[in-house]
Amino acid sequence: MTDPTAEKMADWWQTSVIDMSPGVIRFRGYAIEDLIGNVSFPAMIWLMLRGELPSAAQADLLGAALVAAVDHGPQAPSIAIARMAATCGVGINSAMASAINALGDIHGGAGQQAMSLYAAIEARVAGGAALDMAAAAEVAERLASKQMIEGFGHRFHPVDPRAPRLLALVEDARRGGLVSGRYAAIALAVEAALAKRKGKPLPMNIDGATAVIYCELGFPPELGRGLFVLSRSVGILAHAWEQTQQGGRIKGPVPPSVGYGYTGPAPRPLEQGE
Amino acid sequence: MTDPTAEKMADWWQTSVIDMSPGVIRFRGYAIEDLIGNVSFPAMIWLMLRGELPSAAQADLLGAALVAAVDHGPQAPSIAIARMAATCGVGINSAMASAINALGDIHGGAGQQAMSLYAAIEARVAGGAALDMAAAAEVAERLASKQMIEGFGHRFHPVDPRAPRLLALVEDARRGGLVSGRYAAIALAVEAALAKRKGKPLPMNIDGATAVIYCELGFPPELGRGLFVLSRSVGILAHAWEQTQQGGRIKGPVPPSVGYGYTGPAPRPLEQGE
Amino acid sequence: MTDPTAEKMADWWQTSVIDMSPGVIRFRGYAIEDLIGNVSFPAMIWLMLRGELPSAAQADLLGAALVAAVDHGPQAPSIAIARMAATCGVGINSAMASAINALGDIHGGAGQQAMSLYAAIEARVAGGAALDMAAAAEVAERLASKQMIEGFGHRFHPVDPRAPRLLALVEDARRGGLVSGRYAAIALAVEAALAKRKGKPLPMNIDGATAVIYCELGFPPELGRGLFVLSRSVGILAHAWEQTQQGGRIKGPVPPSVGYGYTGPAPRPLEQGE
Amino acid sequence: MTDPTAEKMADWWQTSVIDMSPGVIRFRGYAIEDLIGNVSFPAMIWLMLRGELPSAAQADLLGAALVAAVDHGPQAPSIAIARMAATCGVGINSAMASAINALGDIHGGAGQQAMSLYAAIEARVAGGAALDMAAAAEVAERLASKQMIEGFGHRFHPVDPRAPRLLALVEDARRGGLVSGRYAAIALAVEAALAKRKGKPLPMNIDGATAVIYCELGFPPELGRGLFVLSRSVGILAHAWEQTQQGGRIKGPVPPSVGYGYTGPAPRPLEQGE
Repeated sequence: MTDPTAEKMADWWQTSVIDMSPGVIRFRGYAIEDLIGNVSFPAMIWLMLRGELPSAAQADLLGAALVAAVDHGPQAPSIAIARMAATCGVGINSAMASAINALGDIHGGAGQQAMSLYAAIEARVAGGAALDMAAAAEVAERLASKQMIEGFGHRFHPVDPRAPRLLALVEDARRGGLVSGRYAAIALAVEAALAKRKGKPLPMNIDGATAVIYCELGFPPELGRGLFVLSRSVGILAHAWEQTQQGGRIKGPVPPSVGYGYTGPAPRPLEQGE
Repeated sequence: MTDPTAEKMADWWQTSVIDMSPGVIRFRGYAIEDLIGNVSFPAMIWLMLRGELPSAAQADLLGAALVAAVDHGPQAPSIAIARMAATCGVGINSAMASAINALGDIHGGAGQQAMSLYAAIEARVAGGAALDMAAAAEVAERLASKQMIEGFGHRFHPVDPRAPRLLALVEDARRGGLVSGRYAAIALAVEAALAKRKGKPLPMNIDGATAVIYCELGFPPELGRGLFVLSRSVGILAHAWEQTQQGGRIKGPVPPSVGYGYTGPAPRPLEQGE
Repeated sequence: MTDPTAEKMADWWQTSVIDMSPGVIRFRGYAIEDLIGNVSFPAMIWLMLRGELPSAAQADLLGAALVAAVDHGPQAPSIAIARMAATCGVGINSAMASAINALGDIHGGAGQQAMSLYAAIEARVAGGAALDMAAAAEVAERLASKQMIEGFGHRFHPVDPRAPRLLALVEDARRGGLVSGRYAAIALAVEAALAKRKGKPLPMNIDGATAVIYCELGFPPELGRGLFVLSRSVGILAHAWEQTQQGGRIKGPVPPSVGYGYTGPAPRPLEQGE
Repeated sequence: MTDPTAEKMADWWQTSVIDMSPGVIRFRGYAIEDLIGNVSFPAMIWLMLRGELPSAAQADLLGAALVAAVDHGPQAPSIAIARMAATCGVGINSAMASAINALGDIHGGAGQQAMSLYAAIEARVAGGAALDMAAAAEVAERLASKQMIEGFGHRFHPVDPRAPRLLALVEDARRGGLVSGRYAAIALAVEAALAKRKGKPLPMNIDGATAVIYCELGFPPELGRGLFVLSRSVGILAHAWEQTQQGGRIKGPVPPSVGYGYTGPAPRPLEQGE
């Protein structure tokens, strides 16, 4: 192809993820038929996002984090959205899309924000600060500017059962030389700093704990959100499918008989001239 | 441009809706600066979808149908989705998208289906059948094959207050020579056929009535869904915005204390070997 | 209802937008049957978002802004997304949702950001600054902190033909006493400040001009984005519908023969042990 | 809780997927801390969708199918949508949602349709028909009624390299007693029937091959679409992330200089009276 438009077009979309020619599909250089059956699904996720294959142990740790965050029940807006959409006459992909779309900065971004927090503390430590001082200072600064400290405390669980289990896996991985344990230490320092400031424990939750794993494994914060989406999509699909089987047409958030509160103006006539 | 790739590219995306060059924007041939301030928003909607401008009276009747369907309250899944998504940390466009996405075949497609029903009856009449026979036969055939008859009856309103008002506007338009009144007659024949079969009235609802207007004005059924989306988007935006102002973070469908019912297996240990 | 759960439930969803009982639908206090046929679609949009009906002249000015922004062609990502989705086997509401979802901070938020800019300058003026100084200072401060100044300049149009036409309508409205003209003056001061800094004109574009109208009419910035979504949804629907009629299955962004550039690793074997 | 509203509310949302109390999260009866680190991500997906845990071998076969379908390049509309949305100022979850939403009946439903086809042939065989006759009859009937036969042939790959590899894994699983091999045989019979009718080979593609695996493992057709979404979400995320790193603002489908074809009316003046 030597004409200029063709060259310009071929430059428009560029990717290092996938290379194809008729009969050939390669991801990051590996033929798809070599990958299928030889690498686990978490390893494939890693390859697609990072460009290189992980070790089996790295892939397993990633897989554990993906298992941990699949679902938190039909009271979560994302799950409720999936279930409601499933009664409205759309394909299961669209019910999933409406739900995944709601995993925004607040509902889906807590892990990403915890990763950014850990990275900020890591930068302070790299600059020479002691870990506990670095954590206390970063927490203080964020609270002073009214930022949320995401990844700690839970409005439903006094202790989130997923967090200690994930931390134990990180500790195993540290002992095995798989990860440095640096981010687990940072997260525990944040936990200590928060407890001191608040006068009560605010234990690490699922977002704080998966953030430790994703940081230990070298993922950047924005991919923390992406990995959470991949994980929570499983629960979203399970609930959309369950709702489909339960049936229901145009199912609202509460029973029709419960209704909602109206807080607006009393009945009024339309004035003339409008 | 004479090279083949450039020609091929210029053929890939083609539209009769909009024509642009630097400093010039034309819709269906009309310069945007001529349209702005000179045609109403419903007239612009008509032009974009149909290719020609409507008369002012046609645009007004379209506008009345768009006004009628803006909202049906926070118990509708689409509205609840918009409100929940608005508490999850996404832009208001994304809160709207999650909701609009749920206006599927069941939640958003009733008007479209009513339009198809009317068209099928119209075809029978065009083939020589009397209107009441045509309506009864089409209804019978659809019920026999377990199809829903959309546009009639309402689970909340004994009489949907929007329908008689819209029908009165159609009747005015018929008297004024703006529309034929053919589809209003068809819809009333469907109403009669249903009442006879069911032994009780199933009065026309908002979907059945807007379907009459869209058919009278010459829109195809699939655009009936599209027009409903444009209309309901207004309510979706109003509720997303109201929820944003009310605040709330990760607001679920019911209060946290109400919970949900669990119907699955009792607690069980993970067996070895898994 | 006197039991506590029922009361709690009725408090969970609250709205001042819509009030319903069987056979009755009221928006902001007005019966729907009074609104249908008596208020224009833009007036209904205003009522839903603001709580009160506008005058006919206010509704007309709002309508002009809504007409102006309906579409900017298939090269805009939102329009391309709608067209592609329409070939993938989803309902027209879902094709629209995928597109509307992409009207994010960059693609759909420029008007909102221009409104915030104008409000910040207005606050400086209210604090005693001269308009040209206030505009220059606000622009300088934003550029110094690497913020974009949205609403001015266009990568395609040397002069955006929509802007002068919208400004002329604002000037008419000012003369008629409908609006103060304050925000038009602010926008022109921004235009002057930018021209001075850049050494070349960066004329107001559609986002800067609709922002003037929405500010003059008293809408808050976040609703600026919402109103843009309502407007652009018309173009999104028109293109999704046109693509549906053109046909196509799984239509990609460029012709299959054009392809894309691959920039990743060369073919490589999967190493043992992975 | 004995008051009627509370009971009614607790009945509104019901699930057998997840059971929670403060400090406790169980999926299908298993405590989350037992699942984390002990079951693979594909096994967790299976548990969530099916209610019981698979064997490790079943989970591996599911994982192989999930690995196979992650991506088919930026020319697929879903991937292009994700990349474009990533330049529009939305979170990565929203870029993913717009893309996943486009995995509709045509773009995402081929596997589901292949599963339904296999099930229909299986039903014929269960009714006493010979496999090759059953396949030929079902194919003939569908083609006669203008239905697509999904899962066979590919517009880009003469032979889809993913299909033979997946089939080889199914054959291994059959020899190991993990699956019956029944659906592989059905798919091959379809391949033969199609080749005979068309006079040329239409070899099984990724959708036809993953459909074999999902059928062999006992998933219903609708979940075939859901599993495809989970798999393709990985590629969607990888491309959204890559585009984010490449930068770009409001990136359209083709270079701005290429443009699009306009096929509508020539410039025309707005007539008076409109």
